[in-house]
Amino acid sequence: MDVARRLSDLEPGYDVPALPGMREAEIQTPCLVLDLAALECNLRAMGDYARSAGVGLRVHGKMHKSVDVAKLQHEIGGASGICCQKVSEAEAFARGGIADILVSNEVTDPNKIDRLARLPKLGASGTRIGVCVDDLATVAELSAAATRHGTELRCLVEIDSGANRCGVAPGPDLAALAHAIIAAPGLSFGGIQAYQGAMQHIADFEARKAAFEASLAITRQALAVLRAEGIPCPTVTGGGTGSYPFEAGSGVYTELQCGSYAFMDADYRTVLDESGATMPEFAHALFLLTSIMSHVKPGRAICDAGLKVQSVDSGLPVVFGRDDVRYLGCSDEHGVIADPDSVLRLNDRLKLVPGHCDPTCNLHDWYVGVRNGLVECLWPVSARGKSW
Amino acid sequence: MDVARRLSDLEPGYDVPALPGMREAEIQTPCLVLDLAALECNLRAMGDYARSAGVGLRVHGKMHKSVDVAKLQHEIGGASGICCQKVSEAEAFARGGIADILVSNEVTDPNKIDRLARLPKLGASGTRIGVCVDDLATVAELSAAATRHGTELRCLVEIDSGANRCGVAPGPDLAALAHAIIAAPGLSFGGIQAYQGAMQHIADFEARKAAFEASLAITRQALAVLRAEGIPCPTVTGGGTGSYPFEAGSGVYTELQCGSYAFMDADYRTVLDESGATMPEFAHALFLLTSIMSHVKPGRAICDAGLKVQSVDSGLPVVFGRDDVRYLGCSDEHGVIADPDSVLRLNDRLKLVPGHCDPTCNLHDWYVGVRNGLVECLWPVSARGKSW
Repeated sequence: MDVARRLSDLEPGYDVPALPGMREAEIQTPCLVLDLAALECNLRAMGDYARSAGVGLRVHGKMHKSVDVAKLQHEIGGASGICCQKVSEAEAFARGGIADILVSNEVTDPNKIDRLARLPKLGASGTRIGVCVDDLATVAELSAAATRHGTELRCLVEIDSGANRCGVAPGPDLAALAHAIIAAPGLSFGGIQAYQGAMQHIADFEARKAAFEASLAITRQALAVLRAEGIPCPTVTGGGTGSYPFEAGSGVYTELQCGSYAFMDADYRTVLDESGATMPEFAHALFLLTSIMSHVKPGRAICDAGLKVQSVDSGLPVVFGRDDVRYLGCSDEHGVIADPDSVLRLNDRLKLVPGHCDPTCNLHDWYVGVRNGLVECLWPVSARGKSW
Repeated sequence: MDVARRLSDLEPGYDVPALPGMREAEIQTPCLVLDLAALECNLRAMGDYARSAGVGLRVHGKMHKSVDVAKLQHEIGGASGICCQKVSEAEAFARGGIADILVSNEVTDPNKIDRLARLPKLGASGTRIGVCVDDLATVAELSAAATRHGTELRCLVEIDSGANRCGVAPGPDLAALAHAIIAAPGLSFGGIQAYQGAMQHIADFEARKAAFEASLAITRQALAVLRAEGIPCPTVTGGGTGSYPFEAGSGVYTELQCGSYAFMDADYRTVLDESGATMPEFAHALFLLTSIMSHVKPGRAICDAGLKVQSVDSGLPVVFGRDDVRYLGCSDEHGVIADPDSVLRLNDRLKLVPGHCDPTCNLHDWYVGVRNGLVECLWPVSARGKSW
C-alpha cells in the first residue's frame, strides 16, 4: 500500500503501471507483465540449444523491442547479436549499447540509408551494423552513404525462400547483388538471409517440416550460385521459434533469428513438435494483466483489455491458468469474458496470454517484471512505435 | 532537400517523421498524415449539423487521442467538451487544457478513482470531470475520493442500450444508482449514457435504423424510470459517426459523442445513408503514408506498412485514389501490394486509408498535418498508449 500510494502521488500524466517493490496485485491494468523466472528459463533453453547445435544465435529484437531483454539475452541466453526490422529500431538498440545489429530487412529510402550508415559510429567502440538487400540500386546508395560517413555496412542478400515477400530468387540476381556488394566501397558481403516467416506458424509438424525442406532447397540453390561464382558465404541467417530445430540441424544455416521463444504467445502454443507436444521447452513469460471493470449481467464480465493493448490478428488471448472463464471478444477498450458460473468480481485480475506477442508488445511503453509476486523491475519498451 | 537534411541531422533516436515546411514527398514512412483541409471540413460539417439539430457535441477523444485535434474541434467544430475512455487519457487532455472531459466508461480501480478525483483541480480555472458508473460500490468509492480531494465528479449512469457490454438495464438498478449519486457527497448526477457501439458499423441503412430504434426504446424506458422516481435527467449522451442523425433527431438525446467523423476510415466508408451514399458529408482526412521497399517480382510490391502501424481488426486498408494497385495483406512490418501492371517503383509512396482509425492512431506518436503538398504542423498523439 505504501508503494501504491507512491504511484498515486506521481504527477498526473507521468504514467508508469507499477514501481519496483510493489505487490503484483497493485500493478495498474491493463499492462504487460513479464514472469522473470520463466523469461530466464526460455533464454537459457534457446541459448543452450544453439550452443549444442553449433549455430549462432542472433535474437530478434523486433519482437520485444527492449534493450533490457536484449541485454539479458546476451548475458544468459547465448546471443551474439540481435536483429531488428527498422532503422529506428536499430538506433534504439545501438543507443542502448547493443554492439552487433542486423536490420533483417530492406532499407531503400535515402534518408533512412543515411541514418543507417551513421550508426556504426555510435558507442565508444563502435557498433557493427548489417542490412539486407534485394535491389542493385540500393547497394549503390548504401555504399555512397557508408563512404560519406566513413563507416562500414555489412550487407546480406535476402533470398525469397518461400515466404513470397522480399528477397531475390537463387539465380543471376543473387550473383549480381553479391558481386556488387563485394565491389562497393564501404560495404562488406555478409552472406545470405533466408527467413521463411509463413511456415513458422504451421501447427502440424510434418507439414511444417515439408515447408522447411522446400525452403532449404532454395537456400541450398542460393549457396550453389555463390559457389559457382567463387564467392565465399560467411553467414546463412534465418529461422524462427516455429522452425529453429530444422535450421539448426540443416548443416546449412550458421545463425538463428528467433524472437518469440523469449515470451511465447497463444498462437505459438498451438505449434506441435514431432511428439505432438506444444513447445514444452518454452514457458509463457509475457502476460497482459487485465481487471474486471463491469459485471452487470450474470455469466458475462467486461475487462479493461481491448484492441488498444493487444493485437488479435493471430487470434484472441487465452486466460492463463483458468478454465472457468474465457476471453470471448473485444472492442477498442473492452474485452468480454465468459464467466458462466459468475465467479468473477469487480476489480478481479486475469492474466491473458496474448494471441501474437510482437504487435502486442509494440502497443506498450513498459514491461513490468515480476518474481515471487513482487515487482522487481520496470523496463521500457525501448523501440516501441519505432517504425521508420 | 534542406528540410530533409535537417531531419537527417537530428540525433539518432530522436524520431520525428517530418518537420514543418518539408514537402509531402520528404515525409518519413510509415506515418500518419492528416489532410488539414479535409479535417477542417469534417469538423465544421459535424459542428454545423449538431448546432442546427440543437444537440450538444462532446467529441470523442479516444479516436484521435490528440490535444491539438480536440482544440481544433472546440475552435471550429462546435465541440463543447470531449469524452474519452481512460483516466490516463483524461489526464493527457486535462493537462493539454481541455476544460470539460467525460470518461465515457466505468472506472472501478481505487487507484484510478483517486487519480480521476484529483483531475478537477488541474488547470487554473479547473477542469469539469465526468465519469460513467454501473455499480453501487463504485459510487461510494468515487464519492470518498472526491471528498478526499475536495473536488466534484459528475456521474452518469451507463445503461446497456443494446451493445451488451457495460451498463445497467433501465430498471431498479438505474434508479438505485441515480439515488446513490444524488445522495453522495462530492458527486453530482449528470444523467445517462446510452451508447450503442455495435450498431455504428451496420452498413445497411434500414438495418442500422432498426437497431437504433431498439436502442432508443431502452433509453426511453430509462428516462421513464428516472421520471417515476422524480429525478431530473440533465443529459442523455451517446451516438457515433454511424448513427448520429438518429440520435440528433430523436428528441431524447441531448449530446452526441462522435469521434471517427473527424478522420474517417475504410470501414465507416462502407456505411450507407438513406439515399445509398457512403457518408458524403465526411472526407478522408487520415492517411497512413507508406513506401514501396521491395519489388522483386512482377505484379507484387512490398510496402513498409504492416501490422505495427495499423489495426486490421475491421479490415485491410484501401489505397487512396488508385484503382491500379491494391493492399492484399500484411505481416508485422510489411504490406503486400497487388501491382498487376507493375507500375510501382522502389520508394514510390501510397496513401492508405486505414480500416479502423481508433486503434491505428493509438500506434503512432505523431500526426503530420499537410496542406497543399507541404507539411504545416506536427502534432503529438498526446494520449497514445494511455490505457490506464
